[in-house]
Amino acid sequence: MTDSQRPLGTDAITSQKRGELALFTDFYELTMLRAYEEHGMTDRAVFSLFVRKLPPGRNFLIACGVDDVLDALGSLVFAEEDIAYLSTQRAFAGSFLNRLAEFRFTGDVHAVPEGTPIFANEPILEIVAPIGEAQLIETLVLNQIGLQTILASKAARVVQAAQGRPVVDFGGRRAQGLDAAVKGVRAFFVAGVSATSNVLAGKKYGIPVTGTMAHSFIAACPSELEAFRRFAEVFPDTVLLVDTYDTLQGVRNVIELAHALAPSFHVRGIRLDSGDLLRLSLEARRMLDEAGLSLLKIFASGGLDEREIDRLLRAGAPIDAFGVGTDMSVSGDAPSLDIAYKLTEYGGTGRMKLSTGKRTLPGQKQVFREIRDGRAVRDVIGRFNEVLPGRPLLAPVMRKGRRLPHAHPTLAAIRAYAQDAFRVLPDDVQALAPVEHPFEVAISPMLAEDERRLREQIMKAIRSNAGGSG
Amino acid sequence: MTDSQRPLGTDAITSQKRGELALFTDFYELTMLRAYEEHGMTDRAVFSLFVRKLPPGRNFLIACGVDDVLDALGSLVFAEEDIAYLSTQRAFAGSFLNRLAEFRFTGDVHAVPEGTPIFANEPILEIVAPIGEAQLIETLVLNQIGLQTILASKAARVVQAAQGRPVVDFGGRRAQGLDAAVKGVRAFFVAGVSATSNVLAGKKYGIPVTGTMAHSFIAACPSELEAFRRFAEVFPDTVLLVDTYDTLQGVRNVIELAHALAPSFHVRGIRLDSGDLLRLSLEARRMLDEAGLSLLKIFASGGLDEREIDRLLRAGAPIDAFGVGTDMSVSGDAPSLDIAYKLTEYGGTGRMKLSTGKRTLPGQKQVFREIRDGRAVRDVIGRFNEVLPGRPLLAPVMRKGRRLPHAHPTLAAIRAYAQDAFRVLPDDVQALAPVEHPFEVAISPMLAEDERRLREQIMKAIRSNAGGSG
Repeated sequence: MTDSQRPLGTDAITSQKRGELALFTDFYELTMLRAYEEHGMTDRAVFSLFVRKLPPGRNFLIACGVDDVLDALGSLVFAEEDIAYLSTQRAFAGSFLNRLAEFRFTGDVHAVPEGTPIFANEPILEIVAPIGEAQLIETLVLNQIGLQTILASKAARVVQAAQGRPVVDFGGRRAQGLDAAVKGVRAFFVAGVSATSNVLAGKKYGIPVTGTMAHSFIAACPSELEAFRRFAEVFPDTVLLVDTYDTLQGVRNVIELAHALAPSFHVRGIRLDSGDLLRLSLEARRMLDEAGLSLLKIFASGGLDEREIDRLLRAGAPIDAFGVGTDMSVSGDAPSLDIAYKLTEYGGTGRMKLSTGKRTLPGQKQVFREIRDGRAVRDVIGRFNEVLPGRPLLAPVMRKGRRLPHAHPTLAAIRAYAQDAFRVLPDDVQALAPVEHPFEVAISPMLAEDERRLREQIMKAIRSNAGGSG
Repeated sequence: MTDSQRPLGTDAITSQKRGELALFTDFYELTMLRAYEEHGMTDRAVFSLFVRKLPPGRNFLIACGVDDVLDALGSLVFAEEDIAYLSTQRAFAGSFLNRLAEFRFTGDVHAVPEGTPIFANEPILEIVAPIGEAQLIETLVLNQIGLQTILASKAARVVQAAQGRPVVDFGGRRAQGLDAAVKGVRAFFVAGVSATSNVLAGKKYGIPVTGTMAHSFIAACPSELEAFRRFAEVFPDTVLLVDTYDTLQGVRNVIELAHALAPSFHVRGIRLDSGDLLRLSLEARRMLDEAGLSLLKIFASGGLDEREIDRLLRAGAPIDAFGVGTDMSVSGDAPSLDIAYKLTEYGGTGRMKLSTGKRTLPGQKQVFREIRDGRAVRDVIGRFNEVLPGRPLLAPVMRKGRRLPHAHPTLAAIRAYAQDAFRVLPDDVQALAPVEHPFEVAISPMLAEDERRLREQIMKAIRSNAGGSG
């Protein structure tokens, strides 16, 4: 029975076991690893992870996902069955696989703190390790930091649009898979989202979970009013969903229940999940207030994104909290990042590719955020060992394959840091609308000179090479 | 130490353990479950999973992901630590949690075969189970079928654009998390993608894995020519990446290597990964042919999607195979589906919500695909027990919580079925361009009558309810 004929086991949905993470790599990382080995290429390399350009219409990104990467690097091993699988591939000989079985990540990692706003070309993370080790982890590092960075960046915009009103994540059902759904909640929380409906993520990260009722509960009951009565009996301080049949009639049913139960009516609010949320929230607020139910909150959900929330609030919608799902969970307007992990140094020498339209800054680097009067005015990317004005963003978080003791911030601390770091950005960069002038990211004169010299050297080699063969 | 202060463990990246899948649910499923129980609502329910409308510009979707859902349902349990976590939530009392510890899914599942092209409002899957059980699994079912359906649907377009040329998945690094990256490969393979660079997915599903070298290998070597020489020494029949510094010079280096090594030059092809792929492929082809290397294939990658592949091939680009990453891996133009899981029957009576713009067809249903002269002409959604012309798409796959013996097709069989089922679609529906007239999906007269009557009944109840309270 070949692999493709094997019934697909439960592990197909329960995702990766610890031992499988080393195999979460592109095949070419392994072929390169073998080629490096056979040619004695074991020198120290620097790889830099950065985003080439911000997604269209976006003013910033929020770096996120480093914690998961460090956890993975600290425990990356090829299990026996991984090695057995690789031995079925023609590209790999026995001696290479024996060495692979001994693989450990022994490198250093420098990273910007999770929650830091970052911009195009700024390293989020740099890996300094023997080239094979740094190479092998490329796929995993890109996938994990890409995921949480794109989701935290999106959520920061949604939170910004809600102007201090709570935002609750409803997106687990629409996220791209289990990993995205669960780690997304972490990223959302870092970016300021208040709670989630995702129970597993709530458990895993200690994030508040919330939720009350769906349309199905109401549809299963003999009537909406009866459904409200039954639900409030079990959960007196619940939120009632009013749009199953007719939203304003739903509000009237809430009011009727309030009169029937008072003074033991403790329902906290109503939820609108469809229709014209501006008109319905205004009308519902008026009806509730007239009925003496001004303490009841209005919760809105259903196809919301940052632009719709912004539009509703600017138009004066009396909405107290937002449930946001699909669009935030997949970062609908920008579901992927132009994120890259590039060799920038090998054996002490700067390296770069010159492929059309793709810039790589050579060597190990540092980013300096210049702050004036409490606001960031520009960033400068410099050499790693340069001393420049501003706050250096990259810090060591792992040394010789071991996570450093200080590199274990709590999620609450990351969230608080993210909020502070975001507020330092210029107002127009924080805003939803695209900035007229993007936040300035300069290259230090020394780094620019390194880049210029390396490019010249490569061009010269190409010309002489072309001459030799022409 | 609270949960949020706990250092985040490795399980944060290695995703869900088996016992955790039951917790992959929205909090409101659990509150509803408790309310159902306390009110003795344990009758049989039918829930229907369908997509409300196709993504903009899309002519079809490819159903995928049912296998993983069935695997999960067959083994869904709340682990002790899940119950312990839930006991920290104010909403849940001891007796409810004791019953939850005994939870098993005991329902029936009907589904369209994976790989079936489907259209708006057609059930992909229907669950018939005690209402609490069917309710609890909502989040998991939507997430998993949504993920693989959106990715298979996207990949089918990419494969279509490549007109028989192999498409290789390069997207693991850009997918939204590990689960999407791994299960995406399965969905891509179902849709006709030939191979993947993702080693873990290759192992898990027995799908061919492939890949050769990255820019970093070349940049780490003293020169591009030397890099080619070193790599070909280890992997004689490799594909050489030629765009690190200057694509056409890269091609010249391949030719130089061929002359130097011949007759022991066995390199299979070159890969272009940036720049103007039309111009570069034409030029590279000419150069290779002139050098007597017409057997070398040209492989293209870098920012490709179905439209770009279509454009290149229509313009006559001599490209033999495509590597596709980011855009396919997140379904860039349509990263989410308007997918819903709705109660359609409870206690033998049809149910629906009337929320603005959202239609739910009542009861358990069947979809009949009418074929004329080997081509699908229209689908009709009817009652489950209707006998109508055409091929019924939904079939039982799980009974009383146990997967049926026939419901274990191999991945190869699913892929072959998908190909056949796709070719039955009208040409304009298969095409990349949006159809002028969407594929017809009719509602059978009996189902339409069920819907009309139920709507009328609900409206009448609302009116009498409004009258009663007004």
